[in-house]
Amino acid sequence: MTDTAAKTLSVVRGFRFEPGHPPRLTVVDQRALPHTLKEIPIDGVERAVDAIRALQVRGAPAIAIVAAYALQLEIERSPETDARKLAELAGRYVERLNSSRPTAVNLGNAMQQFRLLIARFQSEDRPIAWLRESIAALAGELAEADEEICQTLGRLGSELIPRGARILTHCNTGALATAGIGTALAALFTAGMQGKGIRVYATETRPLLQGARLTTWELQRAGIDTALITDSMAAHVLSSGRIDLVMVGADRIVANGDTANKIGTLGIALAAHHYGVPFYVVAPSTTLDFALASGDAIPIEERTADEVRGFGGQAVSPLDVPVYNPAFDVTPGDLITAIVTEKGIHRGPYDFSPRGT
Amino acid sequence: MTDTAAKTLSVVRGFRFEPGHPPRLTVVDQRALPHTLKEIPIDGVERAVDAIRALQVRGAPAIAIVAAYALQLEIERSPETDARKLAELAGRYVERLNSSRPTAVNLGNAMQQFRLLIARFQSEDRPIAWLRESIAALAGELAEADEEICQTLGRLGSELIPRGARILTHCNTGALATAGIGTALAALFTAGMQGKGIRVYATETRPLLQGARLTTWELQRAGIDTALITDSMAAHVLSSGRIDLVMVGADRIVANGDTANKIGTLGIALAAHHYGVPFYVVAPSTTLDFALASGDAIPIEERTADEVRGFGGQAVSPLDVPVYNPAFDVTPGDLITAIVTEKGIHRGPYDFSPRGT
Repeated sequence: MTDTAAKTLSVVRGFRFEPGHPPRLTVVDQRALPHTLKEIPIDGVERAVDAIRALQVRGAPAIAIVAAYALQLEIERSPETDARKLAELAGRYVERLNSSRPTAVNLGNAMQQFRLLIARFQSEDRPIAWLRESIAALAGELAEADEEICQTLGRLGSELIPRGARILTHCNTGALATAGIGTALAALFTAGMQGKGIRVYATETRPLLQGARLTTWELQRAGIDTALITDSMAAHVLSSGRIDLVMVGADRIVANGDTANKIGTLGIALAAHHYGVPFYVVAPSTTLDFALASGDAIPIEERTADEVRGFGGQAVSPLDVPVYNPAFDVTPGDLITAIVTEKGIHRGPYDFSPRGT
Repeated sequence: MTDTAAKTLSVVRGFRFEPGHPPRLTVVDQRALPHTLKEIPIDGVERAVDAIRALQVRGAPAIAIVAAYALQLEIERSPETDARKLAELAGRYVERLNSSRPTAVNLGNAMQQFRLLIARFQSEDRPIAWLRESIAALAGELAEADEEICQTLGRLGSELIPRGARILTHCNTGALATAGIGTALAALFTAGMQGKGIRVYATETRPLLQGARLTTWELQRAGIDTALITDSMAAHVLSSGRIDLVMVGADRIVANGDTANKIGTLGIALAAHHYGVPFYVVAPSTTLDFALASGDAIPIEERTADEVRGFGGQAVSPLDVPVYNPAFDVTPGDLITAIVTEKGIHRGPYDFSPRGT
């Protein structure tokens, strides 16, 4: 690397886990950013579920890891001495955490690993300490794996980014959303560190403004040239030759490449397709859902009306106006130029079924 | 009309002009809606320019009429007794008003009529009272014509709306935006009054939320089944079969049908086109700009960063983040199923050049 513009990257992680007796888990309250950087303690499963539902912690990979740590915390501190009862308790916690958000698959994939672990414990004659230790070990492994995956996503994603590229991104896919440096934003951070001199247009991402509040904050901290636009401006910037490529994350990618991501992604993909601009998805392979053949089967979470009726906590529409508030949409695989996972850069037509990969 | 569901319509106009000595002009402060219905006096040209720039009055037809009345007011109350000087003064006011917003063509068309009137006064030997009377008469004619045009747009636009249709609209094109019952919204109001049982999805229309604040308020007052969505949800509702047709207004339509309208319109048009949903533009013929051959030549107003950084004075993004804030985009004519003016329902390929019509 001869480019003198290459930099080092410092990011704020979305959560912090400190092992010990007891271990401590805190999350950065993402609803308070960018004006306030506030850490809040997560003392167990219920608090984690609340924080996930309230989007204090968000981002498909981060949700999965915070849920795993919350489970570890709850099981470590449980006074239960009966192995069978502790396993049952753990199983109930897993289902409770699993229900906190329906669309992202990373959470479901992580919880499934805990289910298998608990089932193994129940079927084998193990000491109760094994369950506690195994849950802690699995939570740590998931976090460590995600951190490594983010590095790889950054490296592979940056291969798709030419020097001087102008990039459109949507929602927030940075360090706040993962256990590492992010997914799509990891690629942008990496390109920035490599001195590629990129420029990023970040959509504000209504209704919860993750782009305006979090993505611009993370990009500016990383020293990347950033411009904020409303979601409604995406088609215009794509039509006017201002964008060389689109890079977004994903909450669930099914076998044929159909991708659920933050509401608004589909509109961007349609416009990018129309104007011949490459549209890339960057996501860990934990986002892949082999079980679904196409995007029609992905459950789309609908959230409360007040998110849309207001803006930054301020009611702007008539207070009684009915609202439709889907949190995600599904972009067909055939609108996606490439899907980057830590396993490589995949190009369509996609086949992520166990048979296909 | 045998349908018992047919209703009468009562709307709130965006401005009120009371003839007299002196005449009085007030506008509804559209930035205070829907929570506060506040009328503010417009005492002359400078106040009108401020109100137009601040979007207290908005909507391409309403801007033109308010500007015309402000000119009338200013000229009527001027103590100037020298005919030549009064004409010069009127000319300067016309240019001042004309510069208040660059994208909509209705304002430019109206001001051009005043320019011609002033030029005629200057070239003919008329008493000074003729200038004052002619300006007042022209302002009144423009307002009356717009009111009649809105009725016709409503009637013609409604012909495109099947019974039970689910309609997506963007921004605000109702009574607040015109001297009558609106343009695209006039069609929806008319369909509602005809008892067609329509359902309307209104986009919130960032950055200034005219859809959330004004369109939902007007639709609810008119008894029309309404759902509010963010701009980013438009592609999703179009993809999921929830929409039978899109109906929007326009700020400028050029000879080949390319249409400048509120930022976000282009993205909706691309998605509607992709999913085979009819996309209709409803606008008075004063919106037509014969002089431009294609949309590339339309000037796109860029507005201040603070509109995108937050809403209503409350910042949500980092305070120093750079912003790109185009107020309009251009939808190519070939994405528009039909353009409704008061002269009829036009279908592509469009030719609105003087030769073509």
